Amino acid sequence: MVDTPAQDGPLFDTLVVIGPGLIGASVLHRARRDKTIARKLIAVDINPAFRDRVRELGIADDVTGDAVAAVKDADCVMLCVPVGAMGEVAAAVIPAMKAGAILTDTGSTKVSVIESIRPFLRSDIAYVPAHPMAGTEYSGPDAGFATLFDDRWCLLTPLPDSTSLGSVETVTKLWQLCGARTREMAPEHHDRVCAIVSHLPHLLAFTICGTADDLADQTRSEVLEFAASGFRDFTRIAASDPVMWRDIFLSNREAILEMLARFLEDAQTMARAIRWGDSDYIVDCIERGRRIRRSLLENRQA
Amino acid sequence: MVDTPAQDGPLFDTLVVIGPGLIGASVLHRARRDKTIARKLIAVDINPAFRDRVRELGIADDVTGDAVAAVKDADCVMLCVPVGAMGEVAAAVIPAMKAGAILTDTGSTKVSVIESIRPFLRSDIAYVPAHPMAGTEYSGPDAGFATLFDDRWCLLTPLPDSTSLGSVETVTKLWQLCGARTREMAPEHHDRVCAIVSHLPHLLAFTICGTADDLADQTRSEVLEFAASGFRDFTRIAASDPVMWRDIFLSNREAILEMLARFLEDAQTMARAIRWGDSDYIVDCIERGRRIRRSLLENRQA
Repeated sequence: MVDTPAQDGPLFDTLVVIGPGLIGASVLHRARRDKTIARKLIAVDINPAFRDRVRELGIADDVTGDAVAAVKDADCVMLCVPVGAMGEVAAAVIPAMKAGAILTDTGSTKVSVIESIRPFLRSDIAYVPAHPMAGTEYSGPDAGFATLFDDRWCLLTPLPDSTSLGSVETVTKLWQLCGARTREMAPEHHDRVCAIVSHLPHLLAFTICGTADDLADQTRSEVLEFAASGFRDFTRIAASDPVMWRDIFLSNREAILEMLARFLEDAQTMARAIRWGDSDYIVDCIERGRRIRRSLLENRQA
Repeated sequence: MVDTPAQDGPLFDTLVVIGPGLIGASVLHRARRDKTIARKLIAVDINPAFRDRVRELGIADDVTGDAVAAVKDADCVMLCVPVGAMGEVAAAVIPAMKAGAILTDTGSTKVSVIESIRPFLRSDIAYVPAHPMAGTEYSGPDAGFATLFDDRWCLLTPLPDSTSLGSVETVTKLWQLCGARTREMAPEHHDRVCAIVSHLPHLLAFTICGTADDLADQTRSEVLEFAASGFRDFTRIAASDPVMWRDIFLSNREAILEMLARFLEDAQTMARAIRWGDSDYIVDCIERGRRIRRSLLENRQA
């Protein structure tokens, strides 16, 4: 954990969260709880049912469907919508933002999100892309909670032409106040790392559920009945939000396809080793899995 | 849970567990705790370090490396060794067993285990193959605990030529006393179901760890550092015992290769959908994952 210097008041006067789902609602919960992030919290969602839930949860001072009006006095606007919607939302709100305000996003992919937002940027608005690496299998406002980001990473991928270095520091501070550890990296590098640590595992989990679903009826029902630890873990991963994941797959296409191709080569090699009884190859592959697990546990609790 | 009729004494006088690892030690813990399974517990292991641990854990009355001597007075001999070792151990102990005793095993694959044991069977010994579907990422005697099988399935795959129907009932009772729910099915069917619910997920988890391990150094170290929920779940699956899993892959080869081939087709189709931006296919695939998860949760807590 980074030492956060004491501050007089909250980091922002007004924070606008657009898309208070799992991530956005968790930011609001944290900001509401600690009062160090913003004096005033505004939540924006196009879905009336989500707005009602945010009102009932009491995690924002204002809840509205009008993003353009909401961002007018914001010191910071945080886009928490699916990555495929980032460009459209940015195009709508950036012209309405006040000079000197900060725009940030929480998209799980960075290259395509930056490209979709870049055409609408203004020289008097600082844009700081970020990706809080936290989540659960649940989605929507009710999924949020104040401690979601505690000790999780938030990766920042600031633009080389970032209008002010101060804004990167401010967004870093924001995520540290949310409990996260922060790191800066290039957007391209971010997308490759996330392709292997998050996007490919989700793709495999979705796929194996589909494979099981295609089995003949008797086997299929027994798969559900006898789902063992391996498959059960995969279904938990596969329970995530479909629109969010469709967008991630499409927007991080190149990196995901590269990692998937590598994985498929390795899986084919494993199939061949099983077919021809190559014990050494199989044991070596399993041992590598254990080593990776051990390294993870040494890095931090896994 | 099945109603277990009250009984006068324990199910067996003497139970011999060969290979007190995660499964075998858990049976011993349960038998020690409840005293309903056997009056006398004998643990056999070829590994002196494991024998020492079993002695220190105090979960057996006798601990020995001599399987042949140990089984002499056993009413039930349970083979808990890796599936690749079942035939060899059966060949050694069956000639030493007393007439009327029961032989059972806990192998995760059934067709090949049955084939490896069948040549050594005697007409006065009942053999009842079983597969308790329970496990953790840990292995060895220290990994065992008395409640491992509570509310988990134990699948029995009795032979059509089973010498006595009574022995199937007895082994069913044994697993119910361990806390498990039991079901009988054909060995071939068992192997197909387990290929998809357990063996394929493990194969994919081992493989993705290898794929990550092959990445260039900087990305590789960041994979470890930023391992997100997806990858982290895979590494937990991949932490299992290498010899056990090598044996499972080799002994359930046909069913695993069939399920893997189906999976690889599906993964290739997903790759194509991502490459060409086929949103409908991607969303449909993700939705199926969610449906499967929901069915699982409806079936029982997942």
